[in-house]
Amino acid sequence: MTKGKIRIVPLGGLGEVGKNMMVVEYNDDILIVDVGVMFPDDEMFGVDLVIPDASYLADKKHRIRGILITHGHEDHVGGLPYILPMLNFPPLFATRLTQGLIQVKLKEHRMLDKVAINVISPEVSLQLGECGVEFFRVNHSIPDAVGIVIRTPLGTVVHTGDYKFDYTPIDGKPADLGTLGRLGNEGVLLMLGDSTRVESPGYTPSERVINDSLDKIFANAPGRVIVATFASLISRVQQVVDTAERYERFVALTGRSMINNVQMAIELGYLRVPKGMLIRAEDINKFNPEQIVVICTGSQGEPTSALTRIANQDHRLIRIQEGDTVILSATPVPGNEKMVHRTINNLFKQGADVLYQGLSNVHVSGHAAQEELKLMLSLVRPKFFMPIHGEYRQLILHAKLAYSLGIAEENIVVAEDGDVIEVSPERIDLVDHVTSGNVYVDGLSVGDVGQIVLRDRKVLSQDGILMAVLTVDKETGAPIAGPDIVTRGFVYMRDAEELLANARERVVASLSNLNGHSSDWSFVKDKIKSTLSEYLYEKTRRRPMILPVVMEV
Amino acid sequence: MTKGKIRIVPLGGLGEVGKNMMVVEYNDDILIVDVGVMFPDDEMFGVDLVIPDASYLADKKHRIRGILITHGHEDHVGGLPYILPMLNFPPLFATRLTQGLIQVKLKEHRMLDKVAINVISPEVSLQLGECGVEFFRVNHSIPDAVGIVIRTPLGTVVHTGDYKFDYTPIDGKPADLGTLGRLGNEGVLLMLGDSTRVESPGYTPSERVINDSLDKIFANAPGRVIVATFASLISRVQQVVDTAERYERFVALTGRSMINNVQMAIELGYLRVPKGMLIRAEDINKFNPEQIVVICTGSQGEPTSALTRIANQDHRLIRIQEGDTVILSATPVPGNEKMVHRTINNLFKQGADVLYQGLSNVHVSGHAAQEELKLMLSLVRPKFFMPIHGEYRQLILHAKLAYSLGIAEENIVVAEDGDVIEVSPERIDLVDHVTSGNVYVDGLSVGDVGQIVLRDRKVLSQDGILMAVLTVDKETGAPIAGPDIVTRGFVYMRDAEELLANARERVVASLSNLNGHSSDWSFVKDKIKSTLSEYLYEKTRRRPMILPVVMEV
Repeated sequence: MTKGKIRIVPLGGLGEVGKNMMVVEYNDDILIVDVGVMFPDDEMFGVDLVIPDASYLADKKHRIRGILITHGHEDHVGGLPYILPMLNFPPLFATRLTQGLIQVKLKEHRMLDKVAINVISPEVSLQLGECGVEFFRVNHSIPDAVGIVIRTPLGTVVHTGDYKFDYTPIDGKPADLGTLGRLGNEGVLLMLGDSTRVESPGYTPSERVINDSLDKIFANAPGRVIVATFASLISRVQQVVDTAERYERFVALTGRSMINNVQMAIELGYLRVPKGMLIRAEDINKFNPEQIVVICTGSQGEPTSALTRIANQDHRLIRIQEGDTVILSATPVPGNEKMVHRTINNLFKQGADVLYQGLSNVHVSGHAAQEELKLMLSLVRPKFFMPIHGEYRQLILHAKLAYSLGIAEENIVVAEDGDVIEVSPERIDLVDHVTSGNVYVDGLSVGDVGQIVLRDRKVLSQDGILMAVLTVDKETGAPIAGPDIVTRGFVYMRDAEELLANARERVVASLSNLNGHSSDWSFVKDKIKSTLSEYLYEKTRRRPMILPVVMEV
Repeated sequence: MTKGKIRIVPLGGLGEVGKNMMVVEYNDDILIVDVGVMFPDDEMFGVDLVIPDASYLADKKHRIRGILITHGHEDHVGGLPYILPMLNFPPLFATRLTQGLIQVKLKEHRMLDKVAINVISPEVSLQLGECGVEFFRVNHSIPDAVGIVIRTPLGTVVHTGDYKFDYTPIDGKPADLGTLGRLGNEGVLLMLGDSTRVESPGYTPSERVINDSLDKIFANAPGRVIVATFASLISRVQQVVDTAERYERFVALTGRSMINNVQMAIELGYLRVPKGMLIRAEDINKFNPEQIVVICTGSQGEPTSALTRIANQDHRLIRIQEGDTVILSATPVPGNEKMVHRTINNLFKQGADVLYQGLSNVHVSGHAAQEELKLMLSLVRPKFFMPIHGEYRQLILHAKLAYSLGIAEENIVVAEDGDVIEVSPERIDLVDHVTSGNVYVDGLSVGDVGQIVLRDRKVLSQDGILMAVLTVDKETGAPIAGPDIVTRGFVYMRDAEELLANARERVVASLSNLNGHSSDWSFVKDKIKSTLSEYLYEKTRRRPMILPVVMEV
């Protein structure tokens, strides 16, 4: 690599929402910011999780000085259990709550003893190789979120992490405007800025506006109040707890991740719950309905979550009853709308009153809207700018916004995963492209589900499969048994006896007409395939996967 | 059936968005309002279309006096080619443009000569059996939309259709407030009201607000302007044409349904295009970019639509070039967000400037928001009210809104598809439930894809399929050939040779241990299935469909 240059290599999160992972190199030193997961989209049939392809780092493990984590959300830490082993477990650096969340995750994967997680805070600074590293507090929808300052000998790189500016946050810790101003005064070479909410004009409202809505809802709720939100949204949990205290209600928790996160947040001092307020979900029926608040997971309508089970009358302990008020304190992540709507419909059907974003002011975003993005750029005043964390349109819009604030066009780079960006004090250039992309986690295995398997799953999902099984004489090639036709997901076999009998006839006819190819099995299979494919499409306009199996005896 | 009662039987559109179909009965007379389709959701693997289950009407065909159509959208007319033959082609009643759209559809299905479509207008009234029928003009996102008045001897039933109130519509024809007021004054027994947009406060803005946005965009566009919208949104096409005229641009069309609809709308007088303005898409390169507007399909990111092809560099005639401005004049239908975002990202990547709802004011809804719903209820002042057209939560919210306007709780019925509602001058009751639901259209066949086929497709889509094929001696049951293991969509076979070899071993072992069941094939198959299922889950945490095939020779 060129000496005396900074290289920026995004391996995830640029051109997509999720699996954030950024490589920052200065000469021999490599720092990594975040190692996230992404949740599979509709086209990734059967995939559980998606992690970044980190093969770029395979021959550079010895140069990795550390992994810096901005905050504890899945799209920033969820890839660690899969990627850490590939990188020989480099040291991690994270704030206290983030460390706690990572520990829970590493414990589940039985690798807690293999990883050193160093707790950092906005007050500390590190020296990692030739680079100094500092942190600054930002607001986000989880406590203890930070942005990162990497001081290279060539200049300072600022990575904002996910952020918004909340002047009146629930935890009383606003973003560190002073540090950002000082950095801007000192001079910043390159800023990498969160683009998630660039399509929204104005400011993201303070978390505090939720207080008024909760207050109004609690004041009018005739029975129990059930609040679903993200398990990591500790500040929202705090607001519900505070409101419950004002209205003299007890709080029960349900949903594994909600219980775990709340417990940890209390232990680490990120959540204040009055003594005696928390009750077990098993005990809620010992109280009057108007004494109860339930905080649960399921705000995204996830099929096995607590709220979805409640909505489907499938929860171990909680059934909707007359007078229940349910609050979905979250917005659907794109792609989850239908699941969320299904949950809301079912809750209404059970007789609950349901309040959700749009109807009622029960959620605010964790990301900066346009005016906050402008504020960040105006404080940091970087020479070079690179939008991160967003789909391509969001990166472009963020670039345009930076341009509108006076950053020169040639000083802004819109890059995607795998692009290699070189930065010198004079210029920024997109110089190369390295391997990057999606690695699929499906069940126990990482990476063995590739394009062929996914393509097959897609074909199977559309029109199912039809098999033609045939036993032939090894010597003569003459059919001995079959062809048997078996199908799944194509037609209901009992309803389609005639179609399948005719299909069988076609196979028999095509076999009697092989012109001496009778022992060339790949030829025979192709023949069966094309015969069936043509016939079935003509009759049904469907294209099931067709799988001929020939056994020799 | 009870004499002297009105029966209302919704067969589609209540508890869901789409496939609207409402049966209104008075004694022996049956009137049907709308026969729509629904587009399949993610769980309906491989299904092309969903139509209502109309089996309730199978033994009542002779009582059907007519099918009344409110407007020409797919979710109101798309089911006709499938349902009409089941009902022996009863007469249709529709406004002029709606008739034109239905004719195009019936022609495609080669049944134009079998159906009588009577053209109606808000000025005509019909007598169908014992019921009088009238129509009133409403505003919607397609011209020539009407609501329906059915005058039974027991009282008047008003069906709003899909509607909004636009005081300054593009076609100059506002909703018929006078008629609605008169109906209210005369007394309406039952109103069935569109609930689609009940979650939105305030008023839906007039279509006219789009003019200002288009004007601003055209004024600043350095090159071509490409506008994608719904092919049926004739008023939007009119606005684009009018703006093109002001800016002296020629208009080209692309996308089959856009070309067909525009042509018909011009012929029937619903669209005014200045002479010489329309050019062929083949000819756009003969003009300067700033002389060109393209109007196309694809505002929902549909994979084979014109805009998606343009975004993917896959369009026969049009490639994005420097200076192009693309407008998506529509909002994503829930479920289509990801496809729309993908299209926008790709357009930005090709270098276009892209404007879409949220960034710019380029679309308004076709449905009434809360204040308009209140206006409709306040004009019609029905004794009984039944919300229609919406998911369950929307029906409930619409019912609550009606209650807040003073309609008594016992006079409001929230019903779903298949419910039977009886109405007398004194009371409204949900009295019965009949067969209703989804009938799936997949390829050429209607209805043969049922729950079993869909469930199989779902399993196949998640973890694929694994077959174990075995040839045995008919007499002794001894294995002669196999087991052969074949898989698709489970693991990539070349990467998983060891796993599959071991799986094969397990099958062999399980066969050697049959304890005298060796010729009971269903026992053998179950044994193979459970052996493989257990082994594969242990090794991979996946559950492919397992299909043992045993051939006897």
